[in-house]
Amino acid sequence: MSEAAPEIERPEPVRPGPDRDDEAEHEFGVSSEFVNGVREKLEDGRIGEVEAAVSDLHAADLADLVEQIGPDHRGALIDILRPGFDAEIFAYLSPSLRDVVVDQLEPRELAAAVAELESDDAVDLIQDLDADQQREILENLPPETRALVEEGLTFPEYSAGRLMSRDLVSVPQFWTVGKTLDYLRTETDNLPEDFYDIFIVDPMHRVVGAVPLSRIMRQKRSVKVGDILTEDIRTVSATTDQEEVAFLFRQYGLVSAPVVDGAGRLLGVITVDDVVDVIDEEAEDDLLKLSGVPDTDIYRAVLDTTRSRFSWLFVNLLTAILASAVIAVFEGTIERIVALAVLMPIVASMGGNAGTQTLTVTVRALAMRELSEANALRVVAKEALVGTINGALFAVIIGLVAGLWFADPLLGIVIGSAMIINLFVAGLCGTLIPLGLARLKIDPAVASAVFLTTVTDVIGFFAFLGLAALILL
Amino acid sequence: MSEAAPEIERPEPVRPGPDRDDEAEHEFGVSSEFVNGVREKLEDGRIGEVEAAVSDLHAADLADLVEQIGPDHRGALIDILRPGFDAEIFAYLSPSLRDVVVDQLEPRELAAAVAELESDDAVDLIQDLDADQQREILENLPPETRALVEEGLTFPEYSAGRLMSRDLVSVPQFWTVGKTLDYLRTETDNLPEDFYDIFIVDPMHRVVGAVPLSRIMRQKRSVKVGDILTEDIRTVSATTDQEEVAFLFRQYGLVSAPVVDGAGRLLGVITVDDVVDVIDEEAEDDLLKLSGVPDTDIYRAVLDTTRSRFSWLFVNLLTAILASAVIAVFEGTIERIVALAVLMPIVASMGGNAGTQTLTVTVRALAMRELSEANALRVVAKEALVGTINGALFAVIIGLVAGLWFADPLLGIVIGSAMIINLFVAGLCGTLIPLGLARLKIDPAVASAVFLTTVTDVIGFFAFLGLAALILL
Repeated sequence: MSEAAPEIERPEPVRPGPDRDDEAEHEFGVSSEFVNGVREKLEDGRIGEVEAAVSDLHAADLADLVEQIGPDHRGALIDILRPGFDAEIFAYLSPSLRDVVVDQLEPRELAAAVAELESDDAVDLIQDLDADQQREILENLPPETRALVEEGLTFPEYSAGRLMSRDLVSVPQFWTVGKTLDYLRTETDNLPEDFYDIFIVDPMHRVVGAVPLSRIMRQKRSVKVGDILTEDIRTVSATTDQEEVAFLFRQYGLVSAPVVDGAGRLLGVITVDDVVDVIDEEAEDDLLKLSGVPDTDIYRAVLDTTRSRFSWLFVNLLTAILASAVIAVFEGTIERIVALAVLMPIVASMGGNAGTQTLTVTVRALAMRELSEANALRVVAKEALVGTINGALFAVIIGLVAGLWFADPLLGIVIGSAMIINLFVAGLCGTLIPLGLARLKIDPAVASAVFLTTVTDVIGFFAFLGLAALILL
Repeated sequence: MSEAAPEIERPEPVRPGPDRDDEAEHEFGVSSEFVNGVREKLEDGRIGEVEAAVSDLHAADLADLVEQIGPDHRGALIDILRPGFDAEIFAYLSPSLRDVVVDQLEPRELAAAVAELESDDAVDLIQDLDADQQREILENLPPETRALVEEGLTFPEYSAGRLMSRDLVSVPQFWTVGKTLDYLRTETDNLPEDFYDIFIVDPMHRVVGAVPLSRIMRQKRSVKVGDILTEDIRTVSATTDQEEVAFLFRQYGLVSAPVVDGAGRLLGVITVDDVVDVIDEEAEDDLLKLSGVPDTDIYRAVLDTTRSRFSWLFVNLLTAILASAVIAVFEGTIERIVALAVLMPIVASMGGNAGTQTLTVTVRALAMRELSEANALRVVAKEALVGTINGALFAVIIGLVAGLWFADPLLGIVIGSAMIINLFVAGLCGTLIPLGLARLKIDPAVASAVFLTTVTDVIGFFAFLGLAALILL
């Protein structure tokens, strides 16, 4: 068994980090050079060249172009895209620019474009418009499309019902593979463009299973689909939250899943491309909420953005004033030892940062379902311990620095002790706050950071200045 | 045209926010009750019941169970899973627990389990093991599997070559639909379990196009695949970074993409389920780097976690000491007006928060390719303006508060002016720092936050205390 040990030769690991955002090296998508080129052509009035440049672009790339071209050239670009406007572009546009483009198109143009969309994309677009715009578009849609879209809008926002497409392939279980293939060959006009599973339904149109296309293709024509179906498939209720849908696809590596009503009847299908969008949205959501930003739309108007950021900053101002009130309690102490004023931001800042580390891990673990009641206690204890150990390490460092700086060993002991206390509190609150909020059914991402920094500021200043008043005076 | 306006009836939008993290309401995955139930059965030694409970679980759910059961019961659970261990579990386990499980299994058991995996999953598992473990497993693998895995390991880490599976379906372009179907029906053993596209290759095995399964199924047997292929498909080079791959799938809604070598020859296929993992990883990456956490692995040992958090906190300590040094410059001023010590954290804290808002939006926009050289200047100008407007608003608020609190209107003017300056700087640096780092090919997520808070702390203290020294003394 012991031959020459195999040499595992391979290049040094290349981390994507360093050059991940260098546009010039992106292989796919529109480049800055391309955008600048279109801009120049628009400025020179070379309309035909712009038409040629954009004619082969995927809707997603067109949307990027509309976004990046800037407000001065956007109107002219949209006018060029206007004849037979591809409504799929909307699916990829930032919300604020979606409104801009919608406003520029006539209701009839818009309705004609929307009529070309699959029902889920049409619902996705229309749900965000205001009531007047919705009405105008719906009035101009063909009756069947309109009925599907209106039905889609009856499902709760962020539900599987809004995500699903009504275009799917379902056959009864007594059909053979051959009959199914023949059906697909004759019904080509009524089939969705892309599908990955054929759903098998009973006479009441309830889902009894699914056959992936890759399986049906391997079977002889005489085989019954009922004999090759996967029975144990995961169906999604139309009212299921989209986050739950994302979990389902991620957990089990699905490419499509059937959506059913309360009685188990097949309503529609959700495909993985829609779920990828949801995954992006949810990840973004956590990131933004932890930083107190309501959205990532870099195309929103200045005043809208200012207003949307104001409220988080206002809450932060209140907590900062609270921290100042704590400092004010020790005004007399600071007056006598001004070194305290110099050093006091350090303890609070370290607590805030250590707490944010813990908080981020906890919020992410909650979102990814890694943290549950089954292991919560263990994680809290671990984070408190991590905080205490790091607190002790930094106590030694800052204790030496402060003691030498102000030639006062006692001052070093004071700041070191405060550091241990605050980093222990940071570890404890960095887990307990999000877990507590989740328990109270409040989204932990949105409120945890404010609570946490309030605690680490207040405890940081109070421990440092309080210990100083006790020990140094 | 003006009939009765259609009533758009629909329920009030239900935001997933409030109850998103209530375990009891999750429809899919393992529940805390289930985990606790298994734990109890293990404690009572009811092994048969545990075997029954876990026998139907998907590998992803088994992995969650192994994670959440806790260290005291993990060994016993793995012993139960041991006969015919399903190596797919590894794909879903936290890295630190992966090591724990690998250590508990014999090399032969491990190799037998790995041999059952598709080549991409085997590579994914083996690449993270240490050299000895790699060698032991590779030695025990069947020769063909071993060759595929060793070849997979020659591609750079985080590249398409590591992500791709070697199991795919390709046919020459002169084949008919009928011949292709017959081939699929006879070759069942050598086909991948799931596939979504059939790749069409020329005699040199270069990719000339693809036919989605949903299209080939609609065609008559006599049609040539060369006549129904999509020519304009996006191929991925084996050395392409996985983040670029994620962009490709997200941008164009793909479910699979062919991977080619330098000469355009077909090497493998990447499917969307692998890309979903990459998207999760990349989103997590940004979140963690902005908070200074190296990973989200809540199962890492306490000392490992402590060490991994230390370095970020250490950098933060240096910037906090730098801020203290700025304060120290104004020691004399603070000694005379102790109110300054009380108020000074406010300006720095508001600058830090406003800057973080801007930074988060910028980093995310860079990651999602919404921000490029084509629109960078506009975004910088916008954020600086947003910062200045919010700075002015908060200047009025804090100016009044501080002026009344310390009965000194001039103090109000000083803190208000410092606020405007710091929030303008926060907006400017919150965009310029990540853009500058991206330009220097440094990952903006990892280093921006430190630079930013250093700037907002230093400017915050300097502007406030400096103006105070100028105006109040």
